[in-house]
Amino acid sequence: MELWFTEKQTEDLGITCKVRKTLHVEKSKFQDIALIDTNQFGRMLVLDGTIQTTIRDEFVYHEMISHVPLFTHPNPRRVAVIGGGDGGTIREILKHKSVEEAFLVEIDEKVVELARRFLPEISVALDDSRAKVCIEDGIEFVKNHKNEFDVIIVDSTDPVGPAVGLFVKEFYQSIHDALKEDGIFVAQTESPFFNDELIKSVYRDVQSVFPVVKVYLCNVPTYPSGMWCFTMGSKKFDPIEVPENKIKDLDCKYYCKDIHKAAFALPPFVKKLVEQVL
Amino acid sequence: MELWFTEKQTEDLGITCKVRKTLHVEKSKFQDIALIDTNQFGRMLVLDGTIQTTIRDEFVYHEMISHVPLFTHPNPRRVAVIGGGDGGTIREILKHKSVEEAFLVEIDEKVVELARRFLPEISVALDDSRAKVCIEDGIEFVKNHKNEFDVIIVDSTDPVGPAVGLFVKEFYQSIHDALKEDGIFVAQTESPFFNDELIKSVYRDVQSVFPVVKVYLCNVPTYPSGMWCFTMGSKKFDPIEVPENKIKDLDCKYYCKDIHKAAFALPPFVKKLVEQVL
Repeated sequence: MELWFTEKQTEDLGITCKVRKTLHVEKSKFQDIALIDTNQFGRMLVLDGTIQTTIRDEFVYHEMISHVPLFTHPNPRRVAVIGGGDGGTIREILKHKSVEEAFLVEIDEKVVELARRFLPEISVALDDSRAKVCIEDGIEFVKNHKNEFDVIIVDSTDPVGPAVGLFVKEFYQSIHDALKEDGIFVAQTESPFFNDELIKSVYRDVQSVFPVVKVYLCNVPTYPSGMWCFTMGSKKFDPIEVPENKIKDLDCKYYCKDIHKAAFALPPFVKKLVEQVL
Repeated sequence: MELWFTEKQTEDLGITCKVRKTLHVEKSKFQDIALIDTNQFGRMLVLDGTIQTTIRDEFVYHEMISHVPLFTHPNPRRVAVIGGGDGGTIREILKHKSVEEAFLVEIDEKVVELARRFLPEISVALDDSRAKVCIEDGIEFVKNHKNEFDVIIVDSTDPVGPAVGLFVKEFYQSIHDALKEDGIFVAQTESPFFNDELIKSVYRDVQSVFPVVKVYLCNVPTYPSGMWCFTMGSKKFDPIEVPENKIKDLDCKYYCKDIHKAAFALPPFVKKLVEQVL
């Protein structure tokens, strides 16, 4: 028998992967969680039917959501990740020697528990003494901290279900206030091919809160269209003006100093989304 | 009834699209040809079960395979496309005013005929007086021309079936000889995520024939992994050294002068494929 897992990425489009083994399925307080082992991408975390991360391609997303803001900030010491319960973003953040504390603020403890159990390559750094795992609502966490963080990273699921409140202006204002005076924030903001309205609205909201706003791109095979974008809001530092010699070689597979710059080069159809907002 | 078309991009991975209408199916002398209308990507050309081009995302591939070499050459006048029967590459090439003749060398006349009929937005420029449609084997065509072209573009299907001979050193040598002394050649060379051995072997072969060899990237939603690469061999001009003011605004949706440069920034896992070859 052949078993295939199909994610409907949109109403009209799916990605389908041959399954070697179903490792675990459960319903948590917040979502359906599945861990499956696929031939193409290895072990895979699936939340509410949507691929979150896979052993084979996770490096792209985790490196790009982390190193771009962390190298933009000259001395990131206190960092928070909202969401990101698999731990991949924490792993990348802790490659930066300057970081003293990295908070993982995940609403669903089951995700962290299952990532520890089934995705050790990704969750490996959660046992680092600098990693602080907080099982709580990211919206509340951010509200309760003022002027404390150098970098905040929103490593969320898609803007449905528990993550809806992570894509609105009030949240960006709370993040702004939780950051220090030269702080930087990055959020994953979906695909320019399929989520143009969302990207426009996030850009507009972030722009109303932060003086520097930039969108950058990477290519994740298991995400819809493969083209994935991040939106950065920064109080002071511009990611494009980072001196090249500031970017250290962290032995990454996707991120490097050339990619840091190139990621901000936007195809005209993407630039248009952002320019129409202005 | 819901109708879905699924392409198995690898043994273990598929893309599946909801079909609005099957427009045409036939078996030509060379391959199975299908034209289907999908909700997500509009009309689509499918050869031997593999998506070649779609109305919604064709601009990425056609702009990137054309404008990168054409802006690298200071005065491209005579250009040939091997394959590319849908006409999209010819359409982009003819946006360059310097071009006097653009040859489309397609082995399968049925592809050209059906593109004219079902994909007029893509095939539109085939009726331009500067477009010369030649229904013949690209390998023979290239062998029979010496020192004639400024740019040759290999816009082929995957390296199976009729296209196998377009991914070997003998062919690159023929292309070299068909180019003028400052000529440039580009070929589509699949996905770095799934076709690493092919990319290495093409790079090695092109490097043994051309003094300048470069790989560049773009993001095509309907191609495996979304990350697609091109390999360029050039006798004289380096695509990275093109002065910015030489790149004119052609009102593209993906290509622009920032993307021209950024496309050559390779993630370390891609750079490694190419460096191991050296």
